[in-house]
Amino acid sequence: MTDKTVTACLLIIGNEILSGRTRDANLAFLGDQLNRLGIRLTEARVIPDDVAAIVSTVNEVRGCYDYVFTTGGIGPTHDDITADCIARAFGVPLTEHPEARAILDAHYKPGDLNDARLRMARTPQGASLIENPVSGAPGFQIGNVFVMAGIPSVMRAMFGSLSHRLTGGTPLLSKSVVAALPEGLMAAGLGAIQARYPEVEIGSYPFHRMGIYGARLVLRSTDEAQLAAATEEVRALVRELGGTPEADEKDEPASG
Amino acid sequence: MTDKTVTACLLIIGNEILSGRTRDANLAFLGDQLNRLGIRLTEARVIPDDVAAIVSTVNEVRGCYDYVFTTGGIGPTHDDITADCIARAFGVPLTEHPEARAILDAHYKPGDLNDARLRMARTPQGASLIENPVSGAPGFQIGNVFVMAGIPSVMRAMFGSLSHRLTGGTPLLSKSVVAALPEGLMAAGLGAIQARYPEVEIGSYPFHRMGIYGARLVLRSTDEAQLAAATEEVRALVRELGGTPEADEKDEPASG
Repeated sequence: MTDKTVTACLLIIGNEILSGRTRDANLAFLGDQLNRLGIRLTEARVIPDDVAAIVSTVNEVRGCYDYVFTTGGIGPTHDDITADCIARAFGVPLTEHPEARAILDAHYKPGDLNDARLRMARTPQGASLIENPVSGAPGFQIGNVFVMAGIPSVMRAMFGSLSHRLTGGTPLLSKSVVAALPEGLMAAGLGAIQARYPEVEIGSYPFHRMGIYGARLVLRSTDEAQLAAATEEVRALVRELGGTPEADEKDEPASG
Repeated sequence: MTDKTVTACLLIIGNEILSGRTRDANLAFLGDQLNRLGIRLTEARVIPDDVAAIVSTVNEVRGCYDYVFTTGGIGPTHDDITADCIARAFGVPLTEHPEARAILDAHYKPGDLNDARLRMARTPQGASLIENPVSGAPGFQIGNVFVMAGIPSVMRAMFGSLSHRLTGGTPLLSKSVVAALPEGLMAAGLGAIQARYPEVEIGSYPFHRMGIYGARLVLRSTDEAQLAAATEEVRALVRELGGTPEADEKDEPASG
């Protein structure tokens, strides 16, 4: 852990997400997991299966963020072009990784490791593997870029294999208060609390459920005492306006 | 409808999506709706509630895509900064829009339209409103940028209000075939079909359900005859490999 903000960017690679056919499930998982490690997911981009788009995006974001994660496009089919694109972005050749080859040799029955599957042993020169305990074919890391599968169960397993390589910064603590009150009623009071606590970031996330307009008020800070004090003020505000401040079931018990 | 590819980018504005607490539901809706209009959602970015990030991203993408849509950050609270940021990006003042003011006057009971809610009547100079039949406060359009709410029910209603302003290009038709066969088995055959049909984009999207590895094979093209012929070849490939080509329940009946 270092005393600074450590940032990350996620690149979700896949036409299927952009067409609306498949809903991404990796962003929410990664955002939450990184947060626990003291790393802030600061941006996510969904980009198509297109060489120019992938190469230029990877090169843009790997200079802006401490860590870059990609999901999708590392399978055996012709449209799995992520490894090729990462090699191009880093200006290195894409070569068969002996360790990845050995993993595939061991994973498939004799005769099943065809040319298409062998594509999954190719990594950019200098990459280190990310173990895949679910389906064999590994991901890889080169520089600050971590390349993972798009299937959520495989992505999660790969993240478990790589997380020890990440160094987090000051953890961002969070608390939240759910109120069945319209945002417009709480806005003035919330703004005043925000002004008094510049070290706490107060977000108001409205919802509309069963005809009720309400908001989840999320407070985040690296300063535990300021966070606790600001949260108490938000709870008091909700009560003052005739509401009942509720805990968010998504909060961790430890931070509740 | 024009005879060219019309592109769009979605900016999802909100720390809550990046933290993993809230899952975005607007991307899939927008991708699908735009596709029906002959507009291709080519990129989506999730960015934080941060002035510098929003302004620079809006200015970057509005030059690259025919249409830009934003969701989130247009409510009454202090962290609702999207309108301010769009005005900055366009270099115009943010002013009270008389029509928006009239809508809010009519929507709220006398006395309920406080200063915080009045913030929702502010738009960048020159913007036109996007009607919000669900909760009153309108979105707005300036240039090729459409600014919508983040709450899915409100966003969907706003999109309904604005869609007649969009001009689509050649519609991208799609068909899909679901196969309970591992991608690695189909990869060589699929690659060969892709090589024979350069006008058709063939994507393979693997899944892992109930212990079975399979893939949804999605074919897309602006050429209906080529699309039909390539789809038949993919179905034949699946049968040849011992599988059963199934239709995707997500396909429209018209395109099935």
